[in-house]
Amino acid sequence: MHKLKAEKLREFVKMVMKRMGCDDEKAIAIADVLVEADMRGIHSHGVARLRRYVNHMKEGIIDPRAEPKVVFDTPITSLIDGNNGPGQYVSIFSMKRAIEKAKASGVGLVSVRNSNHFGIAGYYTEMAVKEGLVGITMTNSAPLAVHTFSKEAVLGTNPVSIGFPRKNAHPFLLDMALSAVPRGKLEVHARLEKEIPLGWAVDETGKGTKDPKKVLENLREKRGGGLLPLGGEGETFGGHKGYGLMVLVELFTAGLSLGSFSFETYSDKGRISHFFAVMDPRIFGIERNFVNHMEKLLKRLVESKKRMGAERIYLHGEKEYEMKEKAMKDGVELDDPTFDDLRKLSEEMELEFP
Amino acid sequence: MHKLKAEKLREFVKMVMKRMGCDDEKAIAIADVLVEADMRGIHSHGVARLRRYVNHMKEGIIDPRAEPKVVFDTPITSLIDGNNGPGQYVSIFSMKRAIEKAKASGVGLVSVRNSNHFGIAGYYTEMAVKEGLVGITMTNSAPLAVHTFSKEAVLGTNPVSIGFPRKNAHPFLLDMALSAVPRGKLEVHARLEKEIPLGWAVDETGKGTKDPKKVLENLREKRGGGLLPLGGEGETFGGHKGYGLMVLVELFTAGLSLGSFSFETYSDKGRISHFFAVMDPRIFGIERNFVNHMEKLLKRLVESKKRMGAERIYLHGEKEYEMKEKAMKDGVELDDPTFDDLRKLSEEMELEFP
Repeated sequence: MHKLKAEKLREFVKMVMKRMGCDDEKAIAIADVLVEADMRGIHSHGVARLRRYVNHMKEGIIDPRAEPKVVFDTPITSLIDGNNGPGQYVSIFSMKRAIEKAKASGVGLVSVRNSNHFGIAGYYTEMAVKEGLVGITMTNSAPLAVHTFSKEAVLGTNPVSIGFPRKNAHPFLLDMALSAVPRGKLEVHARLEKEIPLGWAVDETGKGTKDPKKVLENLREKRGGGLLPLGGEGETFGGHKGYGLMVLVELFTAGLSLGSFSFETYSDKGRISHFFAVMDPRIFGIERNFVNHMEKLLKRLVESKKRMGAERIYLHGEKEYEMKEKAMKDGVELDDPTFDDLRKLSEEMELEFP
Repeated sequence: MHKLKAEKLREFVKMVMKRMGCDDEKAIAIADVLVEADMRGIHSHGVARLRRYVNHMKEGIIDPRAEPKVVFDTPITSLIDGNNGPGQYVSIFSMKRAIEKAKASGVGLVSVRNSNHFGIAGYYTEMAVKEGLVGITMTNSAPLAVHTFSKEAVLGTNPVSIGFPRKNAHPFLLDMALSAVPRGKLEVHARLEKEIPLGWAVDETGKGTKDPKKVLENLREKRGGGLLPLGGEGETFGGHKGYGLMVLVELFTAGLSLGSFSFETYSDKGRISHFFAVMDPRIFGIERNFVNHMEKLLKRLVESKKRMGAERIYLHGEKEYEMKEKAMKDGVELDDPTFDDLRKLSEEMELEFP
C-alpha cells in the first residue's frame, strides 16, 4: 500500500495525458476524474486505468485531440458527438451544457455518442448537485453483462448515478453499475485466488459459476458468459429487473443519440454513449421546503433499527465522501500493482514520478 | 379457475365503484386499470383489490368524490394534490397532463401527493407510449421494504415503469417493484404452504427467512422485517442498489410533491405519492431513426444465444401483452378466492354479477 498526495497524483496523470497529445484542459479533466475515484475508494475507476488510456490513445481508440461537436440543440436538449475524444472531457463538456439548460429552462437533457470510458458516473452527477440541482448520469460500456436466459454478453454494466443536493450534508449520491457486481470485483477475487459467490456471473454455457478467472478469460476471448444483472440469474430474485434497467440505459445513451449499443463498442473506436439529465427542483415551486422535506426521509432511514450485527445504516455516497475526507488528509491510497505500474509509466515516458 | 369477459368484469367494477360514490369517469378509470392488470396476468393488482378499495372508501382512506387540484404549474411541470381521491383517476388525470406538456414543450413532469393505490404503473406509462412518447411512472406505497442493514420496513416497494414506443411491435414496457419480489408473491406461497427462498424477505430481527406467513404477519402487526430490496440481503448481491433506487422513487414522488413518504402513508388517509414523466424523443432531432435504431438492440437481445434449458429470451412487456391477447380472446382468468369474493360483493351490494 502506498500513499500519495492528491495534487501530485493529479499532476502526474496530467503530464502523462499531455505527453499523449491532450491539451491542458483535456489532461486536467482526465486527471481530476481519475484521482477523484481513488480518493473515494473506487480504485477500479481510478489511476489504475491510466495505462489503458495510454494504450487506447496509441491504438487510436481515444483521440486525445478531438473536440466534441453539438449535433442538435434545443433550449432543453443537446445531442453531442464526442468525436472519439477522451470520455472525461466529453462528459464535463456535456454535463456543463445540461446544467446551463436546467438553469435557464428547468430541465437539461444531453445525449452523447462516440465518446470513451468516462470514469465514475458520480463525478458528473455531482457537478449538477453542487449547483443545487438534481443530476442523472448514465453510460453504456463494453459488453460484459449476460441478460436473463441468454448466455451472451450483449449489454454493458451500464452504470447509473443520480444525485440530490442536501442542506449541511453530503449530497445523496447513488452511483452504481447495473450488474450485480462490477468486473473489478471479479478481478480482485481472481488476484486473491478466491471463489466468487453464485449469483455474480455465468460461464460460457450460461450456468452460474464460482470461478472468476474463467469468467474474465471468457469475456476477453468473447467465448460467452459474463456478469449477471442486478437481481442475479433467472427471474427468481429479479434478474429480469436488472436486465430491464440495463436496456433502459442503452436506450437513453446509445438509443437517443443514435450511437453504438454496448455490443457494438470497441470495434475500431471506443464509441461509448452517455446520457446526462439535470432538473432544477424549483420547477415544482418548492425549493426551500424540498430540501428540508427530504431530510425527514433520510433521517428516518439512517436512524431506523439496525439488524443484528450491523453497526451503521448508510445513505448512498456517505462511504465515498468519508473516504475522500480521509484521502485529503492522509493522501490517496494506491495498491502495489497500481503504484508499480504508474512508476513504470513514468520511466517509459521519462516523466518525474510523484 | 373462472373466465369472464373483460367488458362484463369492467362493467361490474364500475357499478361497485359507482355504488360507493364515484361518478362515471372515476368508476371507469378504476375499472379499466384493474381489469387491465388481470388481462396482463398481474392478478395481485387486478380486481382482487376491489374489496380493499370498497373498504378504503368506507373507512375514508379513499374519497370517491374528490377531484385532484393543480397546486403549481409551468410549461413543463405540474404539482398535483390528489385530495385523497381514487389513485387511478388521479393518475390518469396527471399522466394526461404530462403528455400534453411533452407534446407542447418536449418534456412533461408531474409530481403528485395525497393520492391512493393506483394499480399497475405500466397502465399510465403506456398512455404516453401510445402517443409515440417515452413514459415514466413511479409511485411509493405502504412501508413494506427493509433497507440494507436495517430491520424495519420504512420504504415502499416503490414500483417503477418505463416505456419506449416501437414500430410494428408491442412497446418496450418495464413495470416492476423495486423489492426483489412483490408482497403478492409471499401471499401466494403462504396460501400454498410453501417456503420462500432466502433473499426475498427478512424476519423481525432482520435475518433472512423462508417463512412467508411470518413476514406477512409481521408486516401487518408492524413488528419489524419485510421484503428485501432488489439485490437481496446486505451488499453482496447489490441489495444497497435496490435500496438506493427505492430512495430515489421516494424523492421523485413524495419528495418533489412535498407529500408523505412511504413510512408516513396509511395513517388517516392513503397519502400515496406518484411521479409521471414524459419525453418526446423528437427533442433530440432523431424521431424516425430512433425507432429503427432501437430495434437493432432489441433484435440482438432476443436473438442472442440462449442458456441451456431456456426456451425464449423476453423483452419487457412481451409476456404481459401476450397474456392480454389471450384474455381478449378467451376471457379474463380469475382464481377461486377472487371470483368468490366478487360474487359475495355483488350479493352484499345487490348488484348483478357478471
